[in-house]
Amino acid sequence: MSPSDQVLGTSVEAGGATGGDWVLHPDRALPAEPGVRALAREILSAVSDLPIVSMHGHVPVEWFVENGSFGNPAELLVVPDHYLVRMLVSQGATPAELGVPTRTGSGVTAEADPREIWRRFCAGWHLFRGTPTRFWMETELVDIFGVTQRPSAETADAIYDRIQAVVDSPDFRPRALLDTFGIEVVSTTDPAWSDLAQHHRLAAEGLGDRVLPTFRPDAVLTLTSPTWIADVARLGEAAGVDTGSYAGYLEALRLQRERFKAAGARATDHGLATTDTTPLSDAEATRLYADALAGRVTPEGSTAFAGHMMFQMAAMAAEDHLVMQIHPGVLRDHDPAIAAAYGPDKGYDIPLAIEFAHGLRPLLNAFGHHPGFRAIAFTIDEDTYSRELAPLAGVYPGLKLGAPWWFLDAPDAMRRYREAVTETAGFFNTTGFVDDTRAFCSIPARHDLARRIDAGYLARLVTEHRLDLDEAVDTATYLAYRGPLEAYAELAS
Amino acid sequence: MSPSDQVLGTSVEAGGATGGDWVLHPDRALPAEPGVRALAREILSAVSDLPIVSMHGHVPVEWFVENGSFGNPAELLVVPDHYLVRMLVSQGATPAELGVPTRTGSGVTAEADPREIWRRFCAGWHLFRGTPTRFWMETELVDIFGVTQRPSAETADAIYDRIQAVVDSPDFRPRALLDTFGIEVVSTTDPAWSDLAQHHRLAAEGLGDRVLPTFRPDAVLTLTSPTWIADVARLGEAAGVDTGSYAGYLEALRLQRERFKAAGARATDHGLATTDTTPLSDAEATRLYADALAGRVTPEGSTAFAGHMMFQMAAMAAEDHLVMQIHPGVLRDHDPAIAAAYGPDKGYDIPLAIEFAHGLRPLLNAFGHHPGFRAIAFTIDEDTYSRELAPLAGVYPGLKLGAPWWFLDAPDAMRRYREAVTETAGFFNTTGFVDDTRAFCSIPARHDLARRIDAGYLARLVTEHRLDLDEAVDTATYLAYRGPLEAYAELAS
Amino acid sequence: MSPSDQVLGTSVEAGGATGGDWVLHPDRALPAEPGVRALAREILSAVSDLPIVSMHGHVPVEWFVENGSFGNPAELLVVPDHYLVRMLVSQGATPAELGVPTRTGSGVTAEADPREIWRRFCAGWHLFRGTPTRFWMETELVDIFGVTQRPSAETADAIYDRIQAVVDSPDFRPRALLDTFGIEVVSTTDPAWSDLAQHHRLAAEGLGDRVLPTFRPDAVLTLTSPTWIADVARLGEAAGVDTGSYAGYLEALRLQRERFKAAGARATDHGLATTDTTPLSDAEATRLYADALAGRVTPEGSTAFAGHMMFQMAAMAAEDHLVMQIHPGVLRDHDPAIAAAYGPDKGYDIPLAIEFAHGLRPLLNAFGHHPGFRAIAFTIDEDTYSRELAPLAGVYPGLKLGAPWWFLDAPDAMRRYREAVTETAGFFNTTGFVDDTRAFCSIPARHDLARRIDAGYLARLVTEHRLDLDEAVDTATYLAYRGPLEAYAELAS
Repeated sequence: MSPSDQVLGTSVEAGGATGGDWVLHPDRALPAEPGVRALAREILSAVSDLPIVSMHGHVPVEWFVENGSFGNPAELLVVPDHYLVRMLVSQGATPAELGVPTRTGSGVTAEADPREIWRRFCAGWHLFRGTPTRFWMETELVDIFGVTQRPSAETADAIYDRIQAVVDSPDFRPRALLDTFGIEVVSTTDPAWSDLAQHHRLAAEGLGDRVLPTFRPDAVLTLTSPTWIADVARLGEAAGVDTGSYAGYLEALRLQRERFKAAGARATDHGLATTDTTPLSDAEATRLYADALAGRVTPEGSTAFAGHMMFQMAAMAAEDHLVMQIHPGVLRDHDPAIAAAYGPDKGYDIPLAIEFAHGLRPLLNAFGHHPGFRAIAFTIDEDTYSRELAPLAGVYPGLKLGAPWWFLDAPDAMRRYREAVTETAGFFNTTGFVDDTRAFCSIPARHDLARRIDAGYLARLVTEHRLDLDEAVDTATYLAYRGPLEAYAELAS
Repeated sequence: MSPSDQVLGTSVEAGGATGGDWVLHPDRALPAEPGVRALAREILSAVSDLPIVSMHGHVPVEWFVENGSFGNPAELLVVPDHYLVRMLVSQGATPAELGVPTRTGSGVTAEADPREIWRRFCAGWHLFRGTPTRFWMETELVDIFGVTQRPSAETADAIYDRIQAVVDSPDFRPRALLDTFGIEVVSTTDPAWSDLAQHHRLAAEGLGDRVLPTFRPDAVLTLTSPTWIADVARLGEAAGVDTGSYAGYLEALRLQRERFKAAGARATDHGLATTDTTPLSDAEATRLYADALAGRVTPEGSTAFAGHMMFQMAAMAAEDHLVMQIHPGVLRDHDPAIAAAYGPDKGYDIPLAIEFAHGLRPLLNAFGHHPGFRAIAFTIDEDTYSRELAPLAGVYPGLKLGAPWWFLDAPDAMRRYREAVTETAGFFNTTGFVDDTRAFCSIPARHDLARRIDAGYLARLVTEHRLDLDEAVDTATYLAYRGPLEAYAELAS
Repeated sequence: MSPSDQVLGTSVEAGGATGGDWVLHPDRALPAEPGVRALAREILSAVSDLPIVSMHGHVPVEWFVENGSFGNPAELLVVPDHYLVRMLVSQGATPAELGVPTRTGSGVTAEADPREIWRRFCAGWHLFRGTPTRFWMETELVDIFGVTQRPSAETADAIYDRIQAVVDSPDFRPRALLDTFGIEVVSTTDPAWSDLAQHHRLAAEGLGDRVLPTFRPDAVLTLTSPTWIADVARLGEAAGVDTGSYAGYLEALRLQRERFKAAGARATDHGLATTDTTPLSDAEATRLYADALAGRVTPEGSTAFAGHMMFQMAAMAAEDHLVMQIHPGVLRDHDPAIAAAYGPDKGYDIPLAIEFAHGLRPLLNAFGHHPGFRAIAFTIDEDTYSRELAPLAGVYPGLKLGAPWWFLDAPDAMRRYREAVTETAGFFNTTGFVDDTRAFCSIPARHDLARRIDAGYLARLVTEHRLDLDEAVDTATYLAYRGPLEAYAELAS
């Protein structure tokens, strides 16, 4: 069989030019070398059916409470997916043309016809070649929706109709999909002032162990945030504490953390711009807080206060044992005109060079050996993997490395992650994959891809006689399932 | 067949120790794994005969105007090739010994005997093992000059004679070689004050669409340049505008850009030290300009003015639609003694860590969505690929990623480029290979190598079932040919 | 044979779950692809028996002088190995539990039972999966100690007894092991004030060419070091010069360098925090020195003085021709509580982002072309490989690149090193592997691993027709043996 024949075989299976059915190849994303691939397949088979533990994500809790229909293909698959929208925007589409809701007064109107949005996506299918969006979407379209044709301008309408039919089925509801997708537990992200009413409703309906809240205080830690004064007031109301003083503010945070924990939360989530964790004196923190309430805030003061509060969050974590997720280093909303027209978080967040060794030093010196403390660090600056993060996680018991995250949850990037961190931090100082997505239907595909890449990496170690097969299989199950469970498990005090 | 036999087979073909003829293996630089290699060969076959589009390079326009002989092997292949000279210098040769022209008064005399220079290169052949120079030179020697022996002290003279015979042939002239090499279009680099007389001569002789000028204003944007005052005067003369004022200076730049565009230019070229693009107030820019003309300039003022002028260049680009090539982050002339003896750009340019997210923000906020604007960013700091450049190019329609450039146009570095940028920016936000060289005879070899690496990368994606073969072939033709054509095509306003 | 059978075969050999004997696979750490592997095996066979040249390490000279017993398995293999201790600490053990000696008054007591320490290591064997510790230790246990079982809680005692029996054998002494391990020459690290009495004793006993001192002046170059005043006094005493003045201090350094050289030293060793090499005026240096002696020192002054002294060290090197090893960029003793309890250098050293292009510029401008000068740069910030180090070493004859060092002397990291530096700096501007370890028994395993990785890299180049086999074999012998010998050989003045 000529290579061309081999490929046409592949191509036929994958719905290529020759037009056969579009099916998923069992070896997708496994290493090319046949010996390594065979081992990878064997390792993968041990983990591919394990439940999904999704401890860091952004699926809205309302979806599970309301348990309603997902609407239409555009609303479900295009509009909420930043990866997808940003790629089409980079090639000339506007977010509005892709249905991204606009702000009142922006003068821009979002496309109202979901079919038109879907057509724009399908016509741009070639743009996703080589990206994870291509992999995830292919998996979703085939596995979840039974699509049999490669997306294109020509096939857009037929695919739309096929997806719509599935979406309209009564089984295609968020709660049922937890079972369909094999999701054992999923975490949402909730503001520090949340009353967690939605989570309580879920708990009352028996989903309390399955959909967990996560405490995200960024907004109330950032003095320069335009909504900071309102947000700390909301925090005070939620906690039933007057946040008019710094002491009250700390107390409110402490009480809300307790409330989150009681509602099942396992973790807090911190996405500040820098890694600084230097504590201030109580007097200095009190002064900065009072000044901010009075509307007097400088960028330097805000940065210092944020670093101080990261230290306070760690101190509280050492007491209440909520796991501290740290993912710094993003320049949010790089284009202010886009933010003005569409609001924040519209795909214009750009990674920055980041520093961990000095930044986390105060926090790690104080709590890095505390038996009740655990921090998990994520980064989108790959340079820090082998230079700072693996060396830090490879010695401090209180620091673990999160998954290859955001922009880096792609096949080659995930491989580079393992290659860069394992030799210094091992496997057991990493915490397994998290999907970090609000694209609900992509969750199984994302975990599947991560498991394939880890299987491939482990298979290579076995082939290079750096690991035995039984160890590889055990490690794969740790990375796919035990790791995230253990990383977010309650710590003994 | 034992591995040794296999290798000796290879070695014989490649003129190894067993002394057979030195020929080029058809699979050179393709991936090792046989399945991937077979696919790579198939993908490569679709692009290996496509014309060369060389939109960023440094071949002197005079060569095409004069269309004379290239002289001798040393003058043609050694002296103008920085990669080659710097490696021999790193092992103890002086630039003078390799024929690099010296400055009057330097007290150093360049080797005058081209055969002696050639011998030094051949005796150092082993130093290039594993470098792209080895690959390019091997391709050139075999393909262009019909050399059949591996270079060494022993074979130097015979190879010299062989090359000289080819160089002396009447067909071996710059214009004819455009056809021989399959070069459809080649860009030169020209100072902002050029009258483009040479390009007009070429146009008159029918080469106007084939050899294009590029507008390079670095010298007149850098207040601290020792020749800045003279250079802005030259700019004024060329444009017929008095550059004694900031307004006149802007007008002169605008007029010269127009003149370049009328002469066929598609792009401007910017190689400043930093990425800053922050505009100043008109008053501040006027003041800095006047001060500089009066000889009062500070490093801070010069840096601020350069950033401001990058913003102005972008503003002009949005009007005249010349593509803006940005390649910052090089510490030029690291050794001042070498610069004093030989002049600038003698292989002592060293990459620096660079930052794009903040630096390009003013420019991208202002023009990144402008339909008449396109910037292409190049870097030699690989760390920025996945961290900043791919995320930026993956969302701003006005920013594309240039080729792996300078130091990074080597096999493994080009692979890393695709692996680092594709998953976030895709293929179609990259603009295809440019050779960026003044080593004219290496142009086909450089493009050939880039096509091989891209074919290998695409073949791996196909083998991993992340891409179908028809898509890989289409993508390869984009990267090799359509990409650079489209990237530098006239933008609609 | 199914992949599972293949693996079980492997697994049996490696003492996997099926419980067979634990032996070393001849292809360990060679590339997975069978064609490349076969070539790698052939290249490796040419170098695997070459003597070990270990020009940068930390084995205490006392071991060779005393030539005593290594005590017990914990003392020999666990306590002195930072890699090993830090991994177990990251998973909850304390250094004391692993036998790391504590400081008086620390209130912590080190585990006194070596068997208990060994059990803790064996019980944590799985933590080392994918790390170089796993590879080295496996090699040592099988090759040196004849262990036939994979370490675990269950096998710990039997393995302990087996190792103890070997350690107790009269042949298992440092000097004899130099032969057993095939170590041709090994360098120790010695403070600037050493009287080298131990080395003189070794010389008198015929080991003068085999165990060489290395001059390490960090402590006396760092004004902020808490022991600086005492250390410069010690330096003065050793040199017989009054270091009460800056001039005397320089003279003492010069004399001690001479003494080291006379005792066989080939190199100096510099591990400062930054790369700065900017010389100060003599007056400024004199002032900073006098101030420091008077107890007045600022961090800025100390940093400036250290940069100045690096320049002075280079100036002396250009005269006495000791090779200057530079390995900056480490944040030492990240956790002060650990340093207080156990002393410095206990696995809490964390790499920092580092800059070479500006930092080394003064030094390279002054001495980079001096025929009597050679510097070798090491880094643990991989980002600098292709961006700064390879470009600098690829042009300055006085600068070579050291081995992938500390944290990066692991299989994938060593591969990345070759891939990142070779294309710009070639092979012959790199100096071959150094082990940089005080874990004496790991030296053969570390060199063996480095040779395997280099063989694999070279085999890939041959398979990709980028190198001929005879060249690959010659290069491998350079990297394994000739390289370090030449790099540290006496330079002609």
